Amino acid sequence: MTPLLSDLRVVEVSAFIAAPLGGMTLAQLGAEVIRIDPIGGNIDYRRWPLAPSGDSLYWTGLNKGKKSVTLALNTPEGREIAAALITRPDPGGGILLTNLPASGWMSFDALSAKRADLIMLRLTGSSDGTGAVDYTVNCASGFPMATGEGDKPVNHVLPAWDIAAGLYLCTGLLAAERLRARTGKGQEVTLALSDVMLASVGNLGYVADVQVNGTVRQPLGNDLYGAFGRDFPTRNGRRVMVVAISDRQWKAIGAATGLGERLAMVGPLMGVDLGTEGGRFEAREAIGAVLAPWFAARTLDEVRTAFAGSGVLWGPYQDFGQLVAEDPRCSPANPMFQEVEQPGVGRWRMPGVPLAFGAVPRDPVRPAPRLGQHTDEILAERLGLSSAEIGRLHDSGIVAGPETA
Amino acid sequence: MTPLLSDLRVVEVSAFIAAPLGGMTLAQLGAEVIRIDPIGGNIDYRRWPLAPSGDSLYWTGLNKGKKSVTLALNTPEGREIAAALITRPDPGGGILLTNLPASGWMSFDALSAKRADLIMLRLTGSSDGTGAVDYTVNCASGFPMATGEGDKPVNHVLPAWDIAAGLYLCTGLLAAERLRARTGKGQEVTLALSDVMLASVGNLGYVADVQVNGTVRQPLGNDLYGAFGRDFPTRNGRRVMVVAISDRQWKAIGAATGLGERLAMVGPLMGVDLGTEGGRFEAREAIGAVLAPWFAARTLDEVRTAFAGSGVLWGPYQDFGQLVAEDPRCSPANPMFQEVEQPGVGRWRMPGVPLAFGAVPRDPVRPAPRLGQHTDEILAERLGLSSAEIGRLHDSGIVAGPETA
Repeated sequence: MTPLLSDLRVVEVSAFIAAPLGGMTLAQLGAEVIRIDPIGGNIDYRRWPLAPSGDSLYWTGLNKGKKSVTLALNTPEGREIAAALITRPDPGGGILLTNLPASGWMSFDALSAKRADLIMLRLTGSSDGTGAVDYTVNCASGFPMATGEGDKPVNHVLPAWDIAAGLYLCTGLLAAERLRARTGKGQEVTLALSDVMLASVGNLGYVADVQVNGTVRQPLGNDLYGAFGRDFPTRNGRRVMVVAISDRQWKAIGAATGLGERLAMVGPLMGVDLGTEGGRFEAREAIGAVLAPWFAARTLDEVRTAFAGSGVLWGPYQDFGQLVAEDPRCSPANPMFQEVEQPGVGRWRMPGVPLAFGAVPRDPVRPAPRLGQHTDEILAERLGLSSAEIGRLHDSGIVAGPETA
Repeated sequence: MTPLLSDLRVVEVSAFIAAPLGGMTLAQLGAEVIRIDPIGGNIDYRRWPLAPSGDSLYWTGLNKGKKSVTLALNTPEGREIAAALITRPDPGGGILLTNLPASGWMSFDALSAKRADLIMLRLTGSSDGTGAVDYTVNCASGFPMATGEGDKPVNHVLPAWDIAAGLYLCTGLLAAERLRARTGKGQEVTLALSDVMLASVGNLGYVADVQVNGTVRQPLGNDLYGAFGRDFPTRNGRRVMVVAISDRQWKAIGAATGLGERLAMVGPLMGVDLGTEGGRFEAREAIGAVLAPWFAARTLDEVRTAFAGSGVLWGPYQDFGQLVAEDPRCSPANPMFQEVEQPGVGRWRMPGVPLAFGAVPRDPVRPAPRLGQHTDEILAERLGLSSAEIGRLHDSGIVAGPETA
């Protein structure tokens, strides 16, 4: 069985998280994704964290399964080669994914003059034309002011807007390619990182809460809003998150802890209906007070045993080390993970794409390329250049292959 | 021009954020998305925050532009109608998007027996078969332990894993439908919320950092990791986030604040190369100490004026109220937003999809349906039922239309 998107050919000129994640997702679904970088690498090539070799774990993590071509993009000839790779007339090609300023040779107008049905996906910063990254979009989103205990804003560490943007780019690319397959029509598709944030804030009801109710959501520490959910320390210094959305999940907590009768007393005590999510939210402090000693008397393993098969919705807090050491879901016991050797870095548990397709077996997880690893191959196979011509391009510094140790 | 995905027909049986966001994104790209709910609504129908009417801002925010059909899914006849809607032989139909347990009538086997090329997208909780929601996946991710000041874990408030899952579902759906259009082959596509989390943790380098370096990322407050970025209080009690990834962004900070010469002294002072991201990260406390008085002496407006056109990468912190009141990007000045009347709720600034397609004008933003609003229309148009038959289904409680006030 051939991979799902194996007839798609995407060129990516990108850096950082969003566009590379979009391209990597397509590559992991079987598309050919050629990442073109300037010689020496783009601005994200040495981004921390680094392996002892100096190779970036960030860069290799976000570029798995791609092909890498390095060109002198500051020269006319380097740009011509890049444009030729983007616009050559493969049926599934003519697709550019970028988060770089699309002016000059890389503008939609310039490239679509070379291939009329070009599809160009372009991530920008802020919709007002200014630059933006995840952190400078996030601070404006309202979420840091509603995170933590509220004495001051708390930034998320997960680059959530970048991840969402990368996946919007995939969706947009497939939607645009679907139209092209039916009509022959290409187009430019743009996505502002600030709009990814704003659409999410709106979709989740925060804008309406301000406009309709005049309510500005306040921080609640680790408590869930609108239902019962909070964290509890265990006897051995660990912590767990426990959540009840449905009635069944709520009753499971009482049954598994043996505290059902005392929890039922919280309703009359606090004057709320514990049969509703809102009632359980309003009574969360009293519920927490009843439950906390149960967790404080048990180790994480004892909690795990008590909750196994109980229907309680819960999870342990883990730092990244505990996640890797203790969680079987983060290991090759999970078919999404494979231990793969990343050249220059070493072996680690690499994730494939989280989607599992019934009609297509999982591809082996492929490591990231070395920078420039596929320059010669792509120049020969895609552009039909001779060895002599490729040699000349190397000699004149227009292209580069992988660094040699 | 017809909307992008106007020939796609998706049935959604869902609750909460991820699957509804996936369906809404497709609807906003032009697909017909019929959300089927049990009579009275699914478990998310009254989720907080609520409007004064009791209508959920959460539910209406996540179901914009869909059609709503309510059926007695606990009866054989209700299920038969649902299965008929899912499997009827429209060319762009036969697509089910769900996050509910897919057993019995709603299993892939049962539905694909009625339509062989069925595509079923199914979001599950944890890859080990246990239930999970964003909060119980997030606690295990490592991120709460690396967020904030580190005295205890900090949960994110943004349901980031749900948002990513919803967008993976869109990507997976379009990829599966692309295969079906070429081969006639349907399939079940599954996605575990825990795998969305784990793939992200792996992609961003945290797993490799543990396995290759033995490093467990520690919390840094609001500082960026691996580059210069932190927050500063202003004279008027506001706060801004300032980031420098590139050299140009770094130099812009010195130029715009007039502190370039003193910032240059930080390099020799701290023994680092300020020409590198890593050096600026290592010297972040000293850099912050030089910059802080500049911000403390200025209001947010003065900072905004000083940074306008300067190339400094920055953003203001805003709570949700300030976002709505002060940020023109969160208003109809931004073409993504329109002021739309949501029946039962009121007018608010609704976001469309953040992707902007050059070949297709933006659709008007459509509000969420009232629960059951399209039951009769869909039964008549899609299943060809007569008014008499539809009347009988209402009388016997198998279907329901919208609640009447």
